[in-house]
Amino acid sequence: MIDYSKYYSKLATGIKASEVRELLAIISQRKEVISFAGGIPDPALLPREELAEIARDVILRYGDVALQYSETKGIREVRETLCDYLHKKKNIHCEPEGIVITTGSQSALDLIARVFIDPGDIVITENPTYLAAIGAFKNAGARIIGIPLDDKGMRTDLLEKKLMEMPKEQIERVKYIYTIPIAQNPAGVSMSFDRKKHLMEIASEYNLLIVEDDPYSYLVFEEGVDKTNLKSMDKENRVIYLGTASKILSPGLRIGWVVSSTDIARRIELVKQYVDLHSPSLSQIILSEAIKQGIIDKVLAKALPMYKSKRDTMLKAMKENFPDYVWYSKPIGGLFVFAYIHREGFDSGALLKKAIDLYKVAYVPGGSFHVDGHGKNSMRLNYSYPSHEQIHIGVQRLAKLILESTN
Amino acid sequence: MIDYSKYYSKLATGIKASEVRELLAIISQRKEVISFAGGIPDPALLPREELAEIARDVILRYGDVALQYSETKGIREVRETLCDYLHKKKNIHCEPEGIVITTGSQSALDLIARVFIDPGDIVITENPTYLAAIGAFKNAGARIIGIPLDDKGMRTDLLEKKLMEMPKEQIERVKYIYTIPIAQNPAGVSMSFDRKKHLMEIASEYNLLIVEDDPYSYLVFEEGVDKTNLKSMDKENRVIYLGTASKILSPGLRIGWVVSSTDIARRIELVKQYVDLHSPSLSQIILSEAIKQGIIDKVLAKALPMYKSKRDTMLKAMKENFPDYVWYSKPIGGLFVFAYIHREGFDSGALLKKAIDLYKVAYVPGGSFHVDGHGKNSMRLNYSYPSHEQIHIGVQRLAKLILESTN
Repeated sequence: MIDYSKYYSKLATGIKASEVRELLAIISQRKEVISFAGGIPDPALLPREELAEIARDVILRYGDVALQYSETKGIREVRETLCDYLHKKKNIHCEPEGIVITTGSQSALDLIARVFIDPGDIVITENPTYLAAIGAFKNAGARIIGIPLDDKGMRTDLLEKKLMEMPKEQIERVKYIYTIPIAQNPAGVSMSFDRKKHLMEIASEYNLLIVEDDPYSYLVFEEGVDKTNLKSMDKENRVIYLGTASKILSPGLRIGWVVSSTDIARRIELVKQYVDLHSPSLSQIILSEAIKQGIIDKVLAKALPMYKSKRDTMLKAMKENFPDYVWYSKPIGGLFVFAYIHREGFDSGALLKKAIDLYKVAYVPGGSFHVDGHGKNSMRLNYSYPSHEQIHIGVQRLAKLILESTN
Repeated sequence: MIDYSKYYSKLATGIKASEVRELLAIISQRKEVISFAGGIPDPALLPREELAEIARDVILRYGDVALQYSETKGIREVRETLCDYLHKKKNIHCEPEGIVITTGSQSALDLIARVFIDPGDIVITENPTYLAAIGAFKNAGARIIGIPLDDKGMRTDLLEKKLMEMPKEQIERVKYIYTIPIAQNPAGVSMSFDRKKHLMEIASEYNLLIVEDDPYSYLVFEEGVDKTNLKSMDKENRVIYLGTASKILSPGLRIGWVVSSTDIARRIELVKQYVDLHSPSLSQIILSEAIKQGIIDKVLAKALPMYKSKRDTMLKAMKENFPDYVWYSKPIGGLFVFAYIHREGFDSGALLKKAIDLYKVAYVPGGSFHVDGHGKNSMRLNYSYPSHEQIHIGVQRLAKLILESTN
């Protein structure tokens, strides 16, 4: 037997297989466990019939493109379709030369990390924030500085205070501010328009770039939420905008997009060349055709009332079952409720195995979303994938776990 | 205007947009130029009708998997199908736990670089070798040591000599030997069985890992070529085997695979998690179904005589038109002829613009395939994509360029 450990890079050596990951990896095989752990669209929303016809049709009509190698940046016609769509839906100005199509949004996070981060560089994020963004940035060697959120999104006053206190040479190492301004993951809150304006002013004053991750703005089901994208306010071209087809059409296609300046797009392209050459041509053309045929709009017309109603079911079940020392978010969109269990010593990570084995319920421990080691007493709960009944029963099981672990 | 350059990482700053890349990027739009530059399957080989039906069918039947998120390692059933296929076709022993499905082979090269390479580590390759492998390894900070090839493949005697001369602490930094043993790109040669045995012995003696890149063994059209894969000889589990659907089914699916020990597969999985989460589910299931329906075998039955005949056309045209100071390979398979122009000062890179603008013919300058700065007088010529007529005329144009540039 060869001992492979001596061959591994520092990166591969450092990535420990976390127990949480191991536990969550196997729950899909345990049908008795109700899982709030994923971030997966309701299967009823996947437009099977439509995409089956589109797939067949684009291969027959454009097989020479759909089945062949394509440009590293993405197929030009697809980039054009996407730019039109983003302009129409999000008021985002976008040129085909400033957009790069990526292999899902995760690949965009990784590419951006590689294009900007040298070991020791700084990324500012909301705290808590998306765990796989933290992962991608840390893999590139980033130090993460977290800014708290409230129900109006990132506390930009605290961001400003932080920057005022930072020595100039440290500010020089801030490569970008990473934010999920609308229906934030995991917190489920949206940034108010005033905060957005403030964030843009701060970025301008300190000459900082912003990475705006926007998987969820399509999935805001509450009225009165400001859905202005930072990118649409971006006169100075300092916002790098990330989008994805995963939550609005199909995650299995693995298509995301980055809208930025042509200069940044070019750097991403040059790095991507050796990372995956290009993203799947077939998936790109399916997406483009689905946009043209209005499939995304049809999916959203079903998704919004469905997710709103599932969120209601979850919040209602929590209200009925959770003890009053559990605080939980009231998401205005997206896929998640975030909960803090305010009891000394409550550790959702340490309890996960017991939760799955004994209580038959799963969640993502909230510590993974925190950039500063806090949040052990928190958990992220998904309501898009489980059924209403599962949500109802699962929350009861969770309540039992919480009550029995805090007494 | 923001000056973005201060934000870029060393990697992004270091990747210069090469003039060659710029030139080759635009030739697809210039129909009058005959291009030998790509590595693209003949469009007539793309099984449009079959894949159109398969795509439709798998979305309708397995939409919950094909359109949904899937495992980072690859969909289990697809991994099982692939393992069976590799066992049957290549005599490769493969367990579903030891295989990782990647976003094309390029992604496998990148993942392997990240799993093994720290800056300053060493990779040993054939010289010349595949340019985008060099790119991926160098992006991770590898130093590349090249071993010459002849018509029996890598000169393993020179490899052994090199290793004998290397100080022990340098050998410790050799992370793997990268080889394309069968129908090598760009040289078009295959390693003899004796050389393969010798290579395996050397790896064992010096305790080295081997990365076997195998896009072309399916495309060997000459009789009597040893097609034994190193992985099939790999009793000690030191071979990391890379395969791809790009040359035998469709590049647009972007599916590759890595077969290695479960320990290495696990590390690749952990890194891949933050790189692209997983490879496209739809493409994976299309591949799996295409294997089951025997589509790859049908493609190969057409590809082998077609590529053999195109190679013949290219070699015949070269014999008739090239001056005798041009040496060129006689490929036994794969997609490329490699040529050296033995005239003082001949620089195929410097001539490329003129070749495209004036002579209306394109190639990849051979210097990019050399790891040691040599090979400026060489070029790689693809015969799989152009038609027989284009090959004929293109070689005449090349001959004219060569003659007029060396007089």
